[in-house]
Amino acid sequence: MNESALLGKSRAISPANIVDARAAFDKPLMLDCGVGLSPYTIAYQTYGRLNADRSNAILICHALTMDQYVASPHPITGKPGWWVDGVGPGLTIDTDRYFVICSNVVGGCMGTTGPMDINPKTGKPYGLDFPVITIGDMVRAQAALLDYLGVPDLFCVIGGSMGAMQVLEWAAAFPKRVFTAVAIAGAARHSAQNIAFHEVGRQAIMADPNWMGGAYYAHGTRPTAGLAVARMAAHITYLSEAALHRKFGRNLQDRSRVTFGFDADFQVESYLRHQGSTFVDRFDANSYLYITRALDYFDLAAEHGGVLANAFRGTTTRFCVISFTSDWLYPTRESREVVRALNGVAANVSFVEVETDKGHDAFLLGEPHFEATLAGFIAGAAEHRGLKW
Amino acid sequence: MNESALLGKSRAISPANIVDARAAFDKPLMLDCGVGLSPYTIAYQTYGRLNADRSNAILICHALTMDQYVASPHPITGKPGWWVDGVGPGLTIDTDRYFVICSNVVGGCMGTTGPMDINPKTGKPYGLDFPVITIGDMVRAQAALLDYLGVPDLFCVIGGSMGAMQVLEWAAAFPKRVFTAVAIAGAARHSAQNIAFHEVGRQAIMADPNWMGGAYYAHGTRPTAGLAVARMAAHITYLSEAALHRKFGRNLQDRSRVTFGFDADFQVESYLRHQGSTFVDRFDANSYLYITRALDYFDLAAEHGGVLANAFRGTTTRFCVISFTSDWLYPTRESREVVRALNGVAANVSFVEVETDKGHDAFLLGEPHFEATLAGFIAGAAEHRGLKW
Repeated sequence: MNESALLGKSRAISPANIVDARAAFDKPLMLDCGVGLSPYTIAYQTYGRLNADRSNAILICHALTMDQYVASPHPITGKPGWWVDGVGPGLTIDTDRYFVICSNVVGGCMGTTGPMDINPKTGKPYGLDFPVITIGDMVRAQAALLDYLGVPDLFCVIGGSMGAMQVLEWAAAFPKRVFTAVAIAGAARHSAQNIAFHEVGRQAIMADPNWMGGAYYAHGTRPTAGLAVARMAAHITYLSEAALHRKFGRNLQDRSRVTFGFDADFQVESYLRHQGSTFVDRFDANSYLYITRALDYFDLAAEHGGVLANAFRGTTTRFCVISFTSDWLYPTRESREVVRALNGVAANVSFVEVETDKGHDAFLLGEPHFEATLAGFIAGAAEHRGLKW
Repeated sequence: MNESALLGKSRAISPANIVDARAAFDKPLMLDCGVGLSPYTIAYQTYGRLNADRSNAILICHALTMDQYVASPHPITGKPGWWVDGVGPGLTIDTDRYFVICSNVVGGCMGTTGPMDINPKTGKPYGLDFPVITIGDMVRAQAALLDYLGVPDLFCVIGGSMGAMQVLEWAAAFPKRVFTAVAIAGAARHSAQNIAFHEVGRQAIMADPNWMGGAYYAHGTRPTAGLAVARMAAHITYLSEAALHRKFGRNLQDRSRVTFGFDADFQVESYLRHQGSTFVDRFDANSYLYITRALDYFDLAAEHGGVLANAFRGTTTRFCVISFTSDWLYPTRESREVVRALNGVAANVSFVEVETDKGHDAFLLGEPHFEATLAGFIAGAAEHRGLKW
């Protein structure tokens, strides 16, 4: 955070500094499953300007249910961007200094090609004919976007949760294009428990008769009930028990005693139902299937002969790994495994475990220690790269 | 465990020592919601014989999805009873010494009156017209069963998980009828996180079109898809991340590489799907709604002026509280709260936290330290009561 942020002087990004666009590609995106996806589109936003050296680009990789609307309002919900407190003029990721890029992942539903788009072979929406994608595929699509934008390499690639997995994949797949890599609340592979929670969500969607084997687009229906259940189950994993207790405890919702029924007597029930019902307005159920699958498949060590350190051998990237004490979805020990692997190849790495009771979602909630750590790391790296303003 | 158990000499309970029966009651069961349930039936099993003093009865209280088939085969699945390793001749709960009783809870679906039974007012299954029940109601029904069986008081009331809540309620509501109380892997109230997970399960059931507002019995359908999802979500909470990692890790199911599809590539997915699909064969979806609701409503302190110790003031019961280190559904700190309240009224209490990575379900998995703790406590209490064989 620089001085103006500390003084609360942050301003919204000027519309002139925001690009909201789609890039269309004919050259196939070669996917890990063996399919070439073509044509494909990447929807993205950029904030700020690429400098003359083309050395100030920051790529933000979004999490499972996020999108490219990092710091400008979401077109469906109208809500502020998902990291509006951290990205903007004078903020931790200062759009007056950096050229900030965020693109919707391949398989997503906010403009980048995904299962709701038209399959050129059939003229109908892909549905389950969309190829299964991986974190590696997401990263290759982003690399194609950088080429399109004329960005040779990244000053920084940064992301939380699934974003952190993309960050690690970036550092492994394109080491020369990544000056610094910031992996927040992530892991180098999905654990059995994480796969299990995702499988619950997928089964909830597939159990919804409106899912129709994934071909619901043609029927004017959407498996909103199943998707809402999937979201509710996942949402619990984003918070800590302490946070749930602090926010809701056993407080009742708009009533003084229980109703002896199945209404949302408890605030936590009402909150969860709201999370489910609002999510379905902005997210496609098939995209949820595909992106959770990409997460489950992620195993960076397996991609490198079973040895995580091999993913980073010879790297010159400066790494920052951040975890949160109360995150039980991607607990600190999983970040430590990444750090150990980086240490094993003598990489330049900072590791900070932030004390918070906010759980996994702490990376979205403006924890001061987190923001300060990040600001310090970025400032140091900018100096090291000789960036000047 | 006595000597024959240590020597592995345990035998199945002789059929002559097993009673599998139902008791019918016309006198209404007065429920916490204000309704008098009448008529009602309690389905139960007993093992062994009540002694001449009627002083050797042990009531086992079952968990959410368990039933009265503690130590004899389940009539639907054909599987052994759910605590066959702990209850039987020569075992921790020695059916040669004790008169062991276990009844299906009110609201259940294994013979005790619940939402799938006929509502005498309509001649149709209750469905959602069944009154919402509480842990207190379950205990009052058990007390009526004891009267019916001619058992004045219990040498021991014991249970894990929801069973532990019934144990605490027993000790609070009927202190003179409880010589010893053993609460395993339980809590004095349901946390916000626990309520949240239950709400996910209920929403999964209610989202299934075959649920039909709870009136599915008349339509020859069952919300099996929703109930399976509910079970899958809950099942994750019964295990620890370590146990899931040890059992499954990222191992693939009957294949050497991922399929880039939505089949159960991973063993943990296959296991969870199996848990869901087998559960629906033996459990009623509406019973799942009602029993989870009873758990969510449980708050023993709230029933006693907001002070948990008040629930136990003046008690002469000997308590044993057992928790498991890796149980994140009812973590040790919740057992400690019970112990603190008991200490606050100078009750006789033993507390043991058992080291295990098996999670909440450890109480069903024959942990040696757990079994030894329990056997020691029961033997000491039997001596204290002057039981002789």
